[in-house]
Amino acid sequence: MEQTAALPSVTFETSPDQYQHWKLSIDGHVATLAMDVREDAGLRPHDYKLKLNSYDLGVDIELADVLQRLRFEHPEVHAVMLTSLKPRIFCAGANIFMLGSSSHGFKVNFCKFTNETRLGMEDMSATSGIKFLAAVNGICAGGGYELALACDEIVLVDDGSASVGLPETPLLGVLPGTGGLTRVVDKRKVRRDLADDFSTLTEGVRGKRAVEGRFVDATYPTSKFQESVAKHAQALAAKSDRPTSGPGITLGPLAPAIDGDTIQYKYVKGTIDRAKRTCELTISAPDSPQPTTADAFVAAGDSAWALRAFRELDDCLLRLRLNEPEIGTVIVRAVGDAQAVLGVDAALHANRGHWLVREIIGMIRRTLKRMDLTARSFFALVEPGNAFAGTLFELVLAADRAYMIDHPDDDNTIQLSVMNGGAYSMSNGLSRLQVRFLGEPDSVERALGHDGAFDAQAALAAGLVFSAPDDIDWDDEVRMAIEARAAFSPDALTGMEANLRFAGPETMETKIFGRLTAWQNWIFQRPNAVGEKGALMTYGREGRPQFDFKRT
Amino acid sequence: MEQTAALPSVTFETSPDQYQHWKLSIDGHVATLAMDVREDAGLRPHDYKLKLNSYDLGVDIELADVLQRLRFEHPEVHAVMLTSLKPRIFCAGANIFMLGSSSHGFKVNFCKFTNETRLGMEDMSATSGIKFLAAVNGICAGGGYELALACDEIVLVDDGSASVGLPETPLLGVLPGTGGLTRVVDKRKVRRDLADDFSTLTEGVRGKRAVEGRFVDATYPTSKFQESVAKHAQALAAKSDRPTSGPGITLGPLAPAIDGDTIQYKYVKGTIDRAKRTCELTISAPDSPQPTTADAFVAAGDSAWALRAFRELDDCLLRLRLNEPEIGTVIVRAVGDAQAVLGVDAALHANRGHWLVREIIGMIRRTLKRMDLTARSFFALVEPGNAFAGTLFELVLAADRAYMIDHPDDDNTIQLSVMNGGAYSMSNGLSRLQVRFLGEPDSVERALGHDGAFDAQAALAAGLVFSAPDDIDWDDEVRMAIEARAAFSPDALTGMEANLRFAGPETMETKIFGRLTAWQNWIFQRPNAVGEKGALMTYGREGRPQFDFKRT
Repeated sequence: MEQTAALPSVTFETSPDQYQHWKLSIDGHVATLAMDVREDAGLRPHDYKLKLNSYDLGVDIELADVLQRLRFEHPEVHAVMLTSLKPRIFCAGANIFMLGSSSHGFKVNFCKFTNETRLGMEDMSATSGIKFLAAVNGICAGGGYELALACDEIVLVDDGSASVGLPETPLLGVLPGTGGLTRVVDKRKVRRDLADDFSTLTEGVRGKRAVEGRFVDATYPTSKFQESVAKHAQALAAKSDRPTSGPGITLGPLAPAIDGDTIQYKYVKGTIDRAKRTCELTISAPDSPQPTTADAFVAAGDSAWALRAFRELDDCLLRLRLNEPEIGTVIVRAVGDAQAVLGVDAALHANRGHWLVREIIGMIRRTLKRMDLTARSFFALVEPGNAFAGTLFELVLAADRAYMIDHPDDDNTIQLSVMNGGAYSMSNGLSRLQVRFLGEPDSVERALGHDGAFDAQAALAAGLVFSAPDDIDWDDEVRMAIEARAAFSPDALTGMEANLRFAGPETMETKIFGRLTAWQNWIFQRPNAVGEKGALMTYGREGRPQFDFKRT
Repeated sequence: MEQTAALPSVTFETSPDQYQHWKLSIDGHVATLAMDVREDAGLRPHDYKLKLNSYDLGVDIELADVLQRLRFEHPEVHAVMLTSLKPRIFCAGANIFMLGSSSHGFKVNFCKFTNETRLGMEDMSATSGIKFLAAVNGICAGGGYELALACDEIVLVDDGSASVGLPETPLLGVLPGTGGLTRVVDKRKVRRDLADDFSTLTEGVRGKRAVEGRFVDATYPTSKFQESVAKHAQALAAKSDRPTSGPGITLGPLAPAIDGDTIQYKYVKGTIDRAKRTCELTISAPDSPQPTTADAFVAAGDSAWALRAFRELDDCLLRLRLNEPEIGTVIVRAVGDAQAVLGVDAALHANRGHWLVREIIGMIRRTLKRMDLTARSFFALVEPGNAFAGTLFELVLAADRAYMIDHPDDDNTIQLSVMNGGAYSMSNGLSRLQVRFLGEPDSVERALGHDGAFDAQAALAAGLVFSAPDDIDWDDEVRMAIEARAAFSPDALTGMEANLRFAGPETMETKIFGRLTAWQNWIFQRPNAVGEKGALMTYGREGRPQFDFKRT
């Protein structure tokens, strides 16, 4: 059943001079981000055309890039207006022929990335002072409407043609894959019967009916649309606490060196062992003086360790997800000067009110969430010379297990900082320490209040690591754990980790990943969607889908 | 890929004289419910043997029945001790050969029913004053441990052999299907790394290690086990607010008449139209005087309409789920005297503190939850002569859509009662009105405070129904809606409804159904589990499973 997409390795780095599908213009505090997808510039141009502003992963990689640059390079931008340059079409959603010809694993990873990008927009609104307006100037369907749903406001042109809709169920036999159902009932709080009706319409809803059902916030006739959306954008921009003018910093290329199965960035290194199906992922502490003031952070720009290292980690995780599906376990190490990391943490905390430092902290938070949501097992190895302190200790907390060697001769310690106290919340809104100690909440304050470093026995006693074997047992225990992991069903591990990692409350974000995505994954496997006569495969061809009507 | 289980229609009614797998004894306020599964008495005895206290749906139907009888027939029972009569085995979980030879749809429905039964135990603890103790006197694995997890306390014998464990991932390539992962981290609040380790062990954990990891509450050596669990049970029983002595009422058989595609109970009737793939489900209001005092409820016993009608509805929904997978849409009607329903509501509300009335209200609440969790579309039709008032109006609120005819000549009204104000909470802890009006919370109080009945236009304006066509449009609109539903992918509808029905907060209960079950459904489809070389298929045979190690 697994179709193979003849897809070369995907890289996630891009830059404005390379954009093919998006046009960014900035006027005062309002940026206009216009979608203008090039039909012939998909990632697999021979397999599908990106008609009607439909998108594939390449289009979304550009979107993620431009959003990241708005955060860092354009602090004067307070609101972003998303719109389309195509006549009468806002966005038709994910390209169906791309989906139909992609493997199950690719579809799931594609949806995960697009979800992260849209949640990133909501994160910008909540934490960066950058609000989003969807100026829907044409038909807005499926993933197109889901993109609009990720905005703070949706304004729809009332021209007798433009509509918003989620036609996945009636047209394609799948669910909206980017949070649409969840955002309709949980974010926009549409009544469930209206949402049910809406989600079964092929043609969507237009004008006033869309406003009455809470599907959009306002609608204006064509003659007043431009003027009205400009007013909405200005009103959103006025809520921002970002600087009134620049300059920003420039995000230069990461340009990792790839040599065989090793990818080497400045601070992050990944080495794949195909026989063991592992990736050794090592992140290095700063090895040079780091900024301590807001001005120094601005001067350092993209070379500040805190930003650079987590941009690299983010890129490495994304490549691993998409390009290395058979690598099941990631062995995480942090090396170098733990005190240097704690120094960075002190600087981040002291300057957290500054726009740039806020963005750096946010970038770290989102990268750690990306790790939480990566369908691979993470084992952290805490060895002498490790730099698992403060911000880097979050990698231990994000791991499924951490092993810490209890060495009689070499010092081996971990240390917490103020940055472990909530700066890097998980998707469920809690800190990793809070989730870890859901059953013993006092342990959170005890760990944060601990004076200085923990040696292995202290870390074990404090519940901060899974196991602390001595130097004699270390090799065998770690090796056996990694070998055991490699033998398990990868699907069962994915489901198990998705359930064990997110104890505690659920949020719209965890609902999107935990509830909606899991259902979508199920449906993406079913013959009614991806079988020869399934709805996703017969779309746009002659003949209707043939369903096995058994309800499950 | 769909294996077919040669399974005759399953009936869910049973009674103590028919039990084959459970032995109930009552001593004062403590009931002992002992599992003693008959190997040769599975639902498909030629396909599998129920060794080692493993269970199939038939075993669980008996468990659900005995729990229901403890609620109604034994008000003097304040605590239930679950244990095993098999030497050195508590329960080995769901029978693997049964699972391996069952269709995907059957597996999903089996898990759903077993989950509802275990959540029912937690409901008994939370609302009925009946506490549960798992007296784990032998190996307790997979579904066996999940049964223990549903109890308030777990006590494990420390005999060097007895253990608790969730070996599904390492042994079977699937997830624990009855809430195990969720309860470990969310109910027992086990640390995620310990939970991760635990969920990958084939052999489970024993004795003190199980206590230290929070997997069980206490452990005692064999010599002290009986005495100790008796003390635990007495301590649990002491917390109850149930009567100090009986009598209870007796739950007689429902004994519906089945004639072709019609099932006729006293108050509930279901008629299947196979061509349209619909079931017309009609529930009748009381047609005789109903009890108004607690004593009268006791005297009426199982003949009280409120109890009888919802036991019938429950049974009908269960049969529909399991025996009629191709019936996609349920058309719900309530007929008869709406005032009689409102009279019952007044009596339920006035006597809600009495143990029996509390159980009747709880039975209605759980049946409505069963409807929320049924993977079929529900359309309520509100026509002249309808009895959608109060408790029966919950059926309108539970439906995906409600159509109400706006008739110029015939009266057609709906009416709320105090029982719509929270007595029948959904799995997410909110009332159906609260979930419906998440975006306009004032509408909840407005609807509850409305004086008297709503006609069609008033109901539409109050947001209580989806559509109110006039008598001229009625037939076409309803017919087209039902026909459109029947044409959609049944899988997409299942996923869509599972996402749209549960807006608002998530609870352990919704996590089990929304997050864990969806992942399990996905895994139950994957070749790594159910393919020829999948782990579920090769279990207990020669040869190891062969996995496609791609992580998704």
